[in-house]
Amino acid sequence: MTAMRFEDAAFALAEVGRRIDAHGWAPATAGNYSARLDDGSFAVTISGKHKGRLSAGDIMRVDAAGNALTPGKPSAETWLHLATYHAFPEANAVLHGHSPQAVGLSRAVPEASEWVFRGHEMLKVFPGVTTHETELRLPIVDNSQDMTVIEAAVAPLRLARGAMPAYLIRSHGLYAWGKDLEEAERVLEATEWLIAAELAELGFRNGMAR
Amino acid sequence: MTAMRFEDAAFALAEVGRRIDAHGWAPATAGNYSARLDDGSFAVTISGKHKGRLSAGDIMRVDAAGNALTPGKPSAETWLHLATYHAFPEANAVLHGHSPQAVGLSRAVPEASEWVFRGHEMLKVFPGVTTHETELRLPIVDNSQDMTVIEAAVAPLRLARGAMPAYLIRSHGLYAWGKDLEEAERVLEATEWLIAAELAELGFRNGMAR
Amino acid sequence: MTAMRFEDAAFALAEVGRRIDAHGWAPATAGNYSARLDDGSFAVTISGKHKGRLSAGDIMRVDAAGNALTPGKPSAETWLHLATYHAFPEANAVLHGHSPQAVGLSRAVPEASEWVFRGHEMLKVFPGVTTHETELRLPIVDNSQDMTVIEAAVAPLRLARGAMPAYLIRSHGLYAWGKDLEEAERVLEATEWLIAAELAELGFRNGMAR
Amino acid sequence: MTAMRFEDAAFALAEVGRRIDAHGWAPATAGNYSARLDDGSFAVTISGKHKGRLSAGDIMRVDAAGNALTPGKPSAETWLHLATYHAFPEANAVLHGHSPQAVGLSRAVPEASEWVFRGHEMLKVFPGVTTHETELRLPIVDNSQDMTVIEAAVAPLRLARGAMPAYLIRSHGLYAWGKDLEEAERVLEATEWLIAAELAELGFRNGMAR
Repeated sequence: MTAMRFEDAAFALAEVGRRIDAHGWAPATAGNYSARLDDGSFAVTISGKHKGRLSAGDIMRVDAAGNALTPGKPSAETWLHLATYHAFPEANAVLHGHSPQAVGLSRAVPEASEWVFRGHEMLKVFPGVTTHETELRLPIVDNSQDMTVIEAAVAPLRLARGAMPAYLIRSHGLYAWGKDLEEAERVLEATEWLIAAELAELGFRNGMAR
Repeated sequence: MTAMRFEDAAFALAEVGRRIDAHGWAPATAGNYSARLDDGSFAVTISGKHKGRLSAGDIMRVDAAGNALTPGKPSAETWLHLATYHAFPEANAVLHGHSPQAVGLSRAVPEASEWVFRGHEMLKVFPGVTTHETELRLPIVDNSQDMTVIEAAVAPLRLARGAMPAYLIRSHGLYAWGKDLEEAERVLEATEWLIAAELAELGFRNGMAR
Repeated sequence: MTAMRFEDAAFALAEVGRRIDAHGWAPATAGNYSARLDDGSFAVTISGKHKGRLSAGDIMRVDAAGNALTPGKPSAETWLHLATYHAFPEANAVLHGHSPQAVGLSRAVPEASEWVFRGHEMLKVFPGVTTHETELRLPIVDNSQDMTVIEAAVAPLRLARGAMPAYLIRSHGLYAWGKDLEEAERVLEATEWLIAAELAELGFRNGMAR
Repeated sequence: MTAMRFEDAAFALAEVGRRIDAHGWAPATAGNYSARLDDGSFAVTISGKHKGRLSAGDIMRVDAAGNALTPGKPSAETWLHLATYHAFPEANAVLHGHSPQAVGLSRAVPEASEWVFRGHEMLKVFPGVTTHETELRLPIVDNSQDMTVIEAAVAPLRLARGAMPAYLIRSHGLYAWGKDLEEAERVLEATEWLIAAELAELGFRNGMAR
């Protein structure tokens, strides 16, 4: 699957929202999801809805510049989705979730511009990775209310060697993308899992070192 | 949506109770929920029921002084709900949940009268907040079996600059309100999420500092 | 509700098992549940079944001495259930769950014969408690494969002033009871919640003390 | 139940996948499950599917050498499943999950070749264990992309006295098996529970030692 029909994308984005909420990564109205459509426009979630209880009518269409093609106010972060599609023509879906763990990590390393995952079998979930004997870099950028500032900060990091198809905005949340919605969800799930595994590792290390 | 019809409020409060229980914030019979009704009275949960398994018949009506207008014993904390409605005429729903994390936080800072959240994108869930470059104050007051003591303690804190539409009773739980039930639930979810994110942050910081 | 009919008890015990499993307190075949019946016998869960997937046929009847009155092998711990009913004639249901947190606590204090909860509003869930300004004692006894050894150890602790209607067997799990199944479930949920809240409190304290 | 018919095995493996995913142990496409069939071949999960959303068509058949007997690409780790069946003729099902806690533990002890569980009542879930007054050893081996290297490392550990019917591949995940699928699931659940309980124990110990 690559670019989708609007009706299919709207249904699929609502469904993925329910799963992301069930993980606890979509509190309140946080998060936004998108998919590239077969006519070159994009399906994006409407602003202000709970992402665990979306109906197909809560998804709208925007053009490549972010202009609304159907009624509704697109998410304020639509621009970050579109910039990702522009930077990665092979990307057809972008998911943005908010887990306590990912945000906790980003704040625990306030000066860092990346978090490096090394030696995990789970890294093989990421496209092109065939061995655990590697490392992937999760870019971390500071938050801003100006989307162009975030995009300018993440653009070089996102293209660095070994960068994941994902990045973390500090004190905000995680962006993940893929060639289709399934791949984007796999990248999101695997990245959150890696963060949870490293938090558990620290818990065991810390407890045993006492 | 502002003030509700009783039948709608009863159904909606039962439904929100199931979601709060699914988060693990409604153990045993803990918690109580209310909504302002269109006739000036209030719908409140009956005392002693499990809040994850409410039916519409477990919701009763009280007047502004807390007198029962329908059969049943209102929650002992009804007075805190009513005081919130009196203090904030724009509030139309109040939710009171009990999470282990919120109560754990309140006991970890036994002398504190607030917990300050700074720099979180999630702060934008709160009404009137348009940037993460801010801080919101969650008032914390000591518990009492005399509701007027709790109310007297929280009243000034609740009106302080930057106070959230929520407060935490130490060793007890979290109150949250909003202009409608959806907003009150968003405030509750976002506040609990913020507490969980800061606990995760401490776990990462502590583990790495070892 | 007090003593139940067998059919009602069997249905209700299967249902409570699903909720206990959903909390993560019934891994593998761990746990066993019982209810006092209106004819003086007892409904108990059959040994070796997953407690999150019980059907009414997985519940059997035993007499007050633990002899099977219907086909099936009663849980090896039936004797602890019966001893509780003998000690507390007002008890009509006993639940035994296994949470990682409760067992973790019991092992973290290998010499302790109790854990004291102080100042929690949640204490008011326990029968007879009307204020948070109190303390309740959760007896902790060492595990044994001889049920009479466990029972002998817990008997005096269970009758001590301020003892909860619950006890924790070290490295094993939690017993809780009540005047009906609803109360027993409330005691179990509240006790597990208290343990989770104190673990969260330690996480905050420890993180902030770094 | 011992060896199964293919249709029954396919249905049962899909169902167990949903439960493993609900625990959070099957992120992205991670994990693979198998069962010995009554004709001497094996049912295994197809590579690349989300294990929480399997349909019966996502299960294929392979022979004892791992050759596909039905269309599809078997999991890359099929060989570890087959080696387990060869080593333990009484094993009829093998489950491989990925929990953050198990992987966190394996990384927290980078030099260890086992983790020993002592004195847990939960040990009685494991076949042949009749008392908590024992210890079971969970073998831990380093990860490799060469399955024969993993198998060679684990083979002696797996046969050591007191070894669980399970092993942990470092930075990767947990293998568990049993005489039928129910037993394999019990071993998986009990092992993950033991790891979670010991992490909670460390959290309490560490917090109290501050």
